[in-house]
Amino acid sequence: MFESASLGRSYSTKEYDALKEDLRGRLFAAQREAREHDVPALVIIEGVDGVGKDAVVNLLSAWMDAKNIRNHTFWLETDEEKKRPEAWRYWRALPGKGEMAVFFGGWYSEPIRKFCCGGLDENDFNRRMQRWARLERALAASGTLIVKFWLHIGKKAHKERLEQRLKHKGHRSFTPYDKKSEENYDALVSAAAKAITITDRAYAPWTLIDAFDANFRNVAVTRALTAALSSAVAARETLAQEAPVMTSQACPEGSSMPERDDAAAFNALDAVDLSSAREHSEYKKKLAALQEDIYALTYKAWKHGISSTLVFEGWDAAGKGGAIRRLTAGMDARIVRVIPISAPTDEELAHHYLWRFWRHVPMAGFVTVYDRSWYGRVLVERVEGLTPSADWKRAYAEINDFEAQLREPHNIVVKYWLHISQEEQLRRFRERENTPWKQYKITEEDWRNREKFPAYMEAAEEMFARTSTEEAPWHIVPAEDKKYARLDVLRIYRDTLKKALKRI
Amino acid sequence: MFESASLGRSYSTKEYDALKEDLRGRLFAAQREAREHDVPALVIIEGVDGVGKDAVVNLLSAWMDAKNIRNHTFWLETDEEKKRPEAWRYWRALPGKGEMAVFFGGWYSEPIRKFCCGGLDENDFNRRMQRWARLERALAASGTLIVKFWLHIGKKAHKERLEQRLKHKGHRSFTPYDKKSEENYDALVSAAAKAITITDRAYAPWTLIDAFDANFRNVAVTRALTAALSSAVAARETLAQEAPVMTSQACPEGSSMPERDDAAAFNALDAVDLSSAREHSEYKKKLAALQEDIYALTYKAWKHGISSTLVFEGWDAAGKGGAIRRLTAGMDARIVRVIPISAPTDEELAHHYLWRFWRHVPMAGFVTVYDRSWYGRVLVERVEGLTPSADWKRAYAEINDFEAQLREPHNIVVKYWLHISQEEQLRRFRERENTPWKQYKITEEDWRNREKFPAYMEAAEEMFARTSTEEAPWHIVPAEDKKYARLDVLRIYRDTLKKALKRI
Repeated sequence: MFESASLGRSYSTKEYDALKEDLRGRLFAAQREAREHDVPALVIIEGVDGVGKDAVVNLLSAWMDAKNIRNHTFWLETDEEKKRPEAWRYWRALPGKGEMAVFFGGWYSEPIRKFCCGGLDENDFNRRMQRWARLERALAASGTLIVKFWLHIGKKAHKERLEQRLKHKGHRSFTPYDKKSEENYDALVSAAAKAITITDRAYAPWTLIDAFDANFRNVAVTRALTAALSSAVAARETLAQEAPVMTSQACPEGSSMPERDDAAAFNALDAVDLSSAREHSEYKKKLAALQEDIYALTYKAWKHGISSTLVFEGWDAAGKGGAIRRLTAGMDARIVRVIPISAPTDEELAHHYLWRFWRHVPMAGFVTVYDRSWYGRVLVERVEGLTPSADWKRAYAEINDFEAQLREPHNIVVKYWLHISQEEQLRRFRERENTPWKQYKITEEDWRNREKFPAYMEAAEEMFARTSTEEAPWHIVPAEDKKYARLDVLRIYRDTLKKALKRI
Repeated sequence: MFESASLGRSYSTKEYDALKEDLRGRLFAAQREAREHDVPALVIIEGVDGVGKDAVVNLLSAWMDAKNIRNHTFWLETDEEKKRPEAWRYWRALPGKGEMAVFFGGWYSEPIRKFCCGGLDENDFNRRMQRWARLERALAASGTLIVKFWLHIGKKAHKERLEQRLKHKGHRSFTPYDKKSEENYDALVSAAAKAITITDRAYAPWTLIDAFDANFRNVAVTRALTAALSSAVAARETLAQEAPVMTSQACPEGSSMPERDDAAAFNALDAVDLSSAREHSEYKKKLAALQEDIYALTYKAWKHGISSTLVFEGWDAAGKGGAIRRLTAGMDARIVRVIPISAPTDEELAHHYLWRFWRHVPMAGFVTVYDRSWYGRVLVERVEGLTPSADWKRAYAEINDFEAQLREPHNIVVKYWLHISQEEQLRRFRERENTPWKQYKITEEDWRNREKFPAYMEAAEEMFARTSTEEAPWHIVPAEDKKYARLDVLRIYRDTLKKALKRI
């Protein structure tokens, strides 16, 4: 794979100087244009040791408008990062619209280096590469330009480079000098080849760079980046003309969605018996007992570093807020965080739609309760036509992938749908209009949503069918009777905690 | 101090139920109004152990619109927090416009508990209380409503409460049970009295709550909070009528600013000899040597956990970007982060103006370079009239306070002003207009700013005079000759690093 990147081609200073000004001007112009088109750009710089990855990072900041570039390194993992799914730290660093993020290493570095030295087996390595491929697909589909460089030199050159470096910088190094890296050149290169094979996709291609000579390397990197930025801009312009087919075009793998004919088969909600789910006696006593159980179990979960992600969805006025309060009253206030989802901020809007939810992912042992969630993508955004259909269709797979990461290795994801009949909803809307501190809860919009009940029903049914995974199933809670619903919400969480704790 | 809060007053269930609906409705309405007026509200819940602080936190979420409230606890300090100035974690949690943050404990808890058990001496305790008082003043002056509760019970009741709690919850506790807390009731209460005395200000008053009886406690807390929210709204409405005197009114201590007569005395820039500061020979060699020095010194600083905050200000086209690149090229890319300051995001705009800079404060051992900075408050915002004068006048003290925190205990703050003559600026503007990748750097605005040179000069001079502290002095770098300026920037940082490392 690396033959053409190991030739050791070079440019003399004179040749380089003759090219430089033009290259720089064109790279600069391409960056400006990409920015004007709101393209988020992610540049990943990888390669063998001693090829000048840092020099390339510095070159990019020097030649482009540095005000628009953020460089990220990931060598030091903080405990806030360690205690969350692996991808959390990368999500933190992803570029927003019109921004460029340069990842010095990034998500490939650690698995490649671990795999080549025996710290990771083949299955795990493949699984992780697949994960990054999926993440890149999701980002590309939402408009992020992804450019990945592998800077390469041959084995002999690599050995000389490391010897020279050791002499020059003495023993000052932020990471311990890894003698293995030299000895393992072959293993590293073969691990890299594997990574590149798995993750080289049309929407996130790898560019192999012959990095023996700094001049040649710089020319190759800047040319490739200029071309990538320009074609991202061109794609935007084409898309602007032929609007909403965009994302399914850009990303064929994402659209393997069966046609809507099977929707009739979804009827989880119709099957719910709302009338019999009533709580007749001793509500307060039962509630207190459940809260006491949950207190003990969340304490245990905290001790074992098991996090919980709880998602509340359901019809307007189904009683989400009340249920959440009863649930969190059963936990120590120090470990639980409720995140109400309303309009996104502009920082959130500038990123992939899951970015705002990644922000609040709980640390090991903690609990995050989302009052409404990422499912808005396939509910309100679908029904109200806020998102092109290719995008919300792709969201099912992206969401399953996200939740699978939240679940690993022993964590808990519980998703509640609070279900009420249309008649009960009407009764509650009217009641709200008559209670001073509830009036704000009822708006024109709620009445409008009510009219779209069949469309929401269809969306909800498809959502259950596509995102009820074994790891993170949906729990449909009959909520016609508020007391019953609250107890049921607590019971489900208690039982899930118990099961999870048994598995450890 | 606590006599009236130790009376053990109570309401029967019947009395409480009679009051409840009205209280809840009024609290709710007050919160809604505060939100509509964009008031950020910070509620701090403190008190002796066993008084139901958690119950109060839950009550507030239940009675108000929980969608608008974020609860924060600070018991677990992550390493990202530990490795930064103490206030960083609180800045992270501050409410934006129209939001309410409820701090369960917050910045008083730890110093009070440490002081009462001998873990903190009186001077340190006082110093920290003063710091929080200054922070509260800054927040209040920028419009944040601050409401602080101390929940109290008498000594005997406290003892009973703890015994009961131990029995009830068994040994499940997220923090080890502190038997000292019981024995130290007197010491705790006296430490609290001290804290309250120092930090009880008109703009951030303490409310002492008799918390023996849960009903009485709830009534007292909600009444006080309702009143505070309402008067914040009333103050907003008054201010909206009499506009820009606002902040100096709200905060008399902040405005102890001498009148502008002494401005004539500032002439740091006139004193700079621009002509002789030229670099004649061996620029490349000198630059490389300085970068090598800085590499070694930042490595040492990293080892010792010393962070650096570098600030670049100066005239347009003075060469900030070029100097920053030469400086960072001398560091390992993994430890340095350049933060270009441009237009704030809406999340940033919703907070105190220093919030966006706190976000990027370096961890121990790391380096943050701000390309333009918080000094925009007293430069462009002052000159362009974007900020009322009372606000930018107050900023000098707030900035000094901020930088003092960045400095502690051995960290480095270096502030550069790159100085060029107006003639040189004109030459560079013209040059920029003629270079393809520099054209973007020159806009209408730059030409307009040029016309305001005298006003900027005056603002800069006052800034030097008021913010050149011993801990964080301004370095005025003659930048007529770019090479000289770059070397000077590196020299200054190298020397500062050397000095700081000697002190350890």
